[in-house]
Amino acid sequence: MTTSSNFGVALSEEEHLSLSNAISVLSMDAVEKAQSGHPGMPMGMSDVAVVLFSQFLRFDPRHPDWADRDRFILSAGHGSMLLYSLLYLTGYKDLSLEELKNFRRLGYKTAGHPEYGALQGVETTTGPLGQGFANAVGMAIAERHLNVRFGDDLIDHRVWVVASDGCLMEGLSHEAASLAGHLGLGRMNVLWDDNKISIDGSTDLTSSDDVQERFLSYGWHVVECDGHDPKHIACAIREAASEQRPSLIDCRTIIGCGAPTKAGKSISHGAPLGKEEVAAVRAAINWSHPPFVIPEDISKLGLSLGNRGAKEFDCWTERLLNSSKKENFNRSISGVLPASLTEAVNAHKKSMSINQPRIATRVSSQKILEVIVPILVELLGGSADLSSSNNTKVDSQELLNRNNYGGRYIHYGVREHAMVAAINGMALHKGVIPYGGTFLVFTDYCRPSIRLAALMGIRCIFIMTHDSIGLGEDGPTHQPVEHLSSLRAIPNLVVFRPADAVETAEAWQLALQRRSGPSILALTRQNVPTVRVRHSEFNLSSKGGYVLANAKGERRASIIASGSEIEIAIAAKAQLDLEGIHTAVVSVPSLDLFMAQEPFYINHVFGSSVRVVVEAGVRQCWDRFLGDNDAFIGMSGFGASGSCQELYRHFKITVSNIVNAVKERI
Amino acid sequence: MTTSSNFGVALSEEEHLSLSNAISVLSMDAVEKAQSGHPGMPMGMSDVAVVLFSQFLRFDPRHPDWADRDRFILSAGHGSMLLYSLLYLTGYKDLSLEELKNFRRLGYKTAGHPEYGALQGVETTTGPLGQGFANAVGMAIAERHLNVRFGDDLIDHRVWVVASDGCLMEGLSHEAASLAGHLGLGRMNVLWDDNKISIDGSTDLTSSDDVQERFLSYGWHVVECDGHDPKHIACAIREAASEQRPSLIDCRTIIGCGAPTKAGKSISHGAPLGKEEVAAVRAAINWSHPPFVIPEDISKLGLSLGNRGAKEFDCWTERLLNSSKKENFNRSISGVLPASLTEAVNAHKKSMSINQPRIATRVSSQKILEVIVPILVELLGGSADLSSSNNTKVDSQELLNRNNYGGRYIHYGVREHAMVAAINGMALHKGVIPYGGTFLVFTDYCRPSIRLAALMGIRCIFIMTHDSIGLGEDGPTHQPVEHLSSLRAIPNLVVFRPADAVETAEAWQLALQRRSGPSILALTRQNVPTVRVRHSEFNLSSKGGYVLANAKGERRASIIASGSEIEIAIAAKAQLDLEGIHTAVVSVPSLDLFMAQEPFYINHVFGSSVRVVVEAGVRQCWDRFLGDNDAFIGMSGFGASGSCQELYRHFKITVSNIVNAVKERI
Repeated sequence: MTTSSNFGVALSEEEHLSLSNAISVLSMDAVEKAQSGHPGMPMGMSDVAVVLFSQFLRFDPRHPDWADRDRFILSAGHGSMLLYSLLYLTGYKDLSLEELKNFRRLGYKTAGHPEYGALQGVETTTGPLGQGFANAVGMAIAERHLNVRFGDDLIDHRVWVVASDGCLMEGLSHEAASLAGHLGLGRMNVLWDDNKISIDGSTDLTSSDDVQERFLSYGWHVVECDGHDPKHIACAIREAASEQRPSLIDCRTIIGCGAPTKAGKSISHGAPLGKEEVAAVRAAINWSHPPFVIPEDISKLGLSLGNRGAKEFDCWTERLLNSSKKENFNRSISGVLPASLTEAVNAHKKSMSINQPRIATRVSSQKILEVIVPILVELLGGSADLSSSNNTKVDSQELLNRNNYGGRYIHYGVREHAMVAAINGMALHKGVIPYGGTFLVFTDYCRPSIRLAALMGIRCIFIMTHDSIGLGEDGPTHQPVEHLSSLRAIPNLVVFRPADAVETAEAWQLALQRRSGPSILALTRQNVPTVRVRHSEFNLSSKGGYVLANAKGERRASIIASGSEIEIAIAAKAQLDLEGIHTAVVSVPSLDLFMAQEPFYINHVFGSSVRVVVEAGVRQCWDRFLGDNDAFIGMSGFGASGSCQELYRHFKITVSNIVNAVKERI
Repeated sequence: MTTSSNFGVALSEEEHLSLSNAISVLSMDAVEKAQSGHPGMPMGMSDVAVVLFSQFLRFDPRHPDWADRDRFILSAGHGSMLLYSLLYLTGYKDLSLEELKNFRRLGYKTAGHPEYGALQGVETTTGPLGQGFANAVGMAIAERHLNVRFGDDLIDHRVWVVASDGCLMEGLSHEAASLAGHLGLGRMNVLWDDNKISIDGSTDLTSSDDVQERFLSYGWHVVECDGHDPKHIACAIREAASEQRPSLIDCRTIIGCGAPTKAGKSISHGAPLGKEEVAAVRAAINWSHPPFVIPEDISKLGLSLGNRGAKEFDCWTERLLNSSKKENFNRSISGVLPASLTEAVNAHKKSMSINQPRIATRVSSQKILEVIVPILVELLGGSADLSSSNNTKVDSQELLNRNNYGGRYIHYGVREHAMVAAINGMALHKGVIPYGGTFLVFTDYCRPSIRLAALMGIRCIFIMTHDSIGLGEDGPTHQPVEHLSSLRAIPNLVVFRPADAVETAEAWQLALQRRSGPSILALTRQNVPTVRVRHSEFNLSSKGGYVLANAKGERRASIIASGSEIEIAIAAKAQLDLEGIHTAVVSVPSLDLFMAQEPFYINHVFGSSVRVVVEAGVRQCWDRFLGDNDAFIGMSGFGASGSCQELYRHFKITVSNIVNAVKERI
């Protein structure tokens, strides 16, 4: 049973046309006024959108955060005016006419591509192709998972995606579609804007795919329709909605539909139609109203679509209020952490400080997960085919699959990009706190989605193990060298590189507490000692860096390191101490958090004497803190295949090299 | 007609088995000795490999660089011992037994994953999954293209790929397979190691794809075989080789075949089998020889496969010697630039200095391409569906497609990752000099392949336009902010960000001359003035940075900038000059090249007075050159949607901000 497939009523032909035209005209006029943008897609998909919004999409503009709403994802984000027109016409209060008039202008919510957080009704930030499609997979996973937890009464909705030819060409769509097919995500329905046009021209120039066959090969349901025939569209959507499999609805459309000379051509894709063509569209569809004027009857009609959801919302609210699961539900959706978590993490930290295991930080991560997973039921993990290498799975986690959506661990397969994009979708959906793992070097494979998580400011946790040449024999293709710098360069992404079991627990705690953006935990393959041997309730990693070992007298040098290099730093300090050179060791589990501290704190921790930074990566991200008399010991080129020990020696990341660097400089 | 499909003779059953066993045993023993590595794949694919090398692959171990050899690509690079065993057994002199014994040890050529350049016979560096598969697409394009130029006599070979389940899960394989199907690359044959096992366990855990159907949907030919039945394998390969379409040969194999308890299981994938299992394999296949001892008859048999190609090579060499195209062929394959190029570039630079156009550097790039394309016939361009935005196509370039492999421009479609991986394949193939374009922000989509180009040290040129917030209204999803830093962090990648038409011509010249690694040209969407108004024959960009405008007296400040920010720097200098503050403007078209200069030169150019760096990106990559009294003016977070002018003002990358920064500091 699906609620949404029986939700709306078909409009009359005339009503349909008036709304579809309103969208087309608003879109072309906004682009014309902005003198930039993409009119072709909204004009081509307005018929499909009207059918979806009038008959199928379950939404309530007065409650854009309704947890059980259908999600509408514009994966083809360049067609943002389609979304903005729909939100405006159906009565989202966040979107005034003024906003439409100032499309693509600084300071307005109507950005060139839809931006999550800037405007209610925008479910995810799109523009980079394929991302919305893959976000939707995560949303559909979250929906089924929460349905198991909370039942049909509270969670029972659909995810609708508008995807372009470009979305489907991106490799990401392959990974995501394959995953969705495998998981049998019938709640995901993709409206493919099959207009056979991309920027360079006809898709014949670049593709000979039989897209329908491709999706069938993933285990999808496929149906097609004339994307300009409302009845035909409704019929196809109805069929899709009744399907157990995810559906691809192949909507045969004409890009720039209605534009007398530019329709069906790539010139209508990404530039204003021009004054003449705009006038010709008006004439062709008999639209006499000036730009941004919507006649009252059409306006009312649009609002009536928005009002359809009010009753559904009220019923749902009532069900929630009467539900025994209300409290849990609200806490899950709100994303607040259970109070008992802090205590459990502290107990674990204390135990690690006492037991002082010599283990890889990837193992430390698994150990703290064993503590967190039972307490934090929202946590939903996975790995891109590296579960036992990333140590991302704990015994108590059942697998999430098509037979058990209640499971809390996902085998994502060798699909790093889809994994991260799906994780973004889960975080956007709310109700779960997603994490996933791969090797740190393969952040390159999923970087576009990591960036979007940072841009959207959503809580996603990425467990990236094998974080340096320390992984050894797999060699330079697997050894991250530039990755710590290149990830730290991404705004609003926090990279953690903990040194031991205690810092790893602290990193997990901070990543969970960080609701304004994603976190990466960069973890070792190789064993490292416990260096935090005195227990501290306070999360010392929270400021990013701190003095781990004080100088025994007036500080003459600071050895600043992170992760696996802390062990070497401590050994170097011991040797320098023996020689009477008072040295401090500074641990920097998160350079990102550290850089956000007051200059006073930074200078206090790093000290004003000689600084030697040690990290098995390139120096770029540390340069800010290194003066002419300081030193960096790390990597300046790619790694090599050999044992961990050999490689550290070969690349001169050694105790003696640190000691010498200090002695040469003091 | 194909030469390679009729090239070899089938071995007897016994011969086949002895070679297949030799590969399996060498592989498992090398992994055992290294105590790390991947025995399962070589043991599972040894039968397929023996059939391929004995009956189909056209190669000559004495001439590993034979331009018309078949290419053998181990896309599943973790199975490196399969390749090393084959190279050793067939007589590649570069690979001694000593190398096999020191598999995965520092200082040896037998790295954990095959490394291009480290060992003859390794056609590309693989390990990150899907890359070899996509490289092969580029090689197959290069083969057909050169076939048109030089005819069947000189270029007429095949590309064979061994791909894993993991390779086919990666999104990259979708893009690459779709492109290969579209271009009808019948010379590409993929041997899919269909063992239904990945690291996390059975592929059933993660995938329900009908892979054969998927490849049929791309327009591929598909055939399957029992991957342990030599006759069946040969039959399938023969069918594939006779096909006009690219072929997927679905080889049903057993991972770790021959290992009594571990065969068919994921535990045989990525760890030594262990002493007991190794002994059990020996017993099971009746192999009594100690590790790394190959009995003479098997050794001779292996060498005889390697000798098969000698005659073919000699015939080919004779054809080349007698060919009227010899000189052109040798020059193309050698990759040497035509002598007339320098003169033409200089004439263009001079013309730009005189005409001083105010154009975007993406347009400048097109203008210099118009000069280069007719001279440098090896140049083969393209774009990932942004031809008119990247300005990568010039009128004289015909399209390369299945009806015209002689064309010199490829519409890659919305497939950034496959484009770059294919470009890598073309550069590796030799005979063409490939370039391709997308938006700078989408380097994230193809970063794994960019990194591999840098690691391999091959000449690829990436035209990455829309290089900052200057692109305007498309907003933060499209505006690179961290990309200049994150790309400059990749070792052996040179990023150019030219300021005008002259520097863009110089960047192109340097990128073409740079044979030891890839280059990126980061180019503006918006117009910029010509700032190099005095012609210099010398390529001023070759040192990465230079004083563009001298201080009018003793230098009190240096404004250091790149690309579009040079215009602002010059305006600020003019204002400071008026106020009597002698300021120099330093242009840094390539920070990477600049950092490779002697400290003396760097200090000379940057000066010892106040430095203000201006670049519309994050500061990380510049920190090395900024002291406490210096300033950086750029971005510290994501961009926004608005006009270029608005955004520069909003983010305070302005003349007045530069002027104030200087004045506050002197």
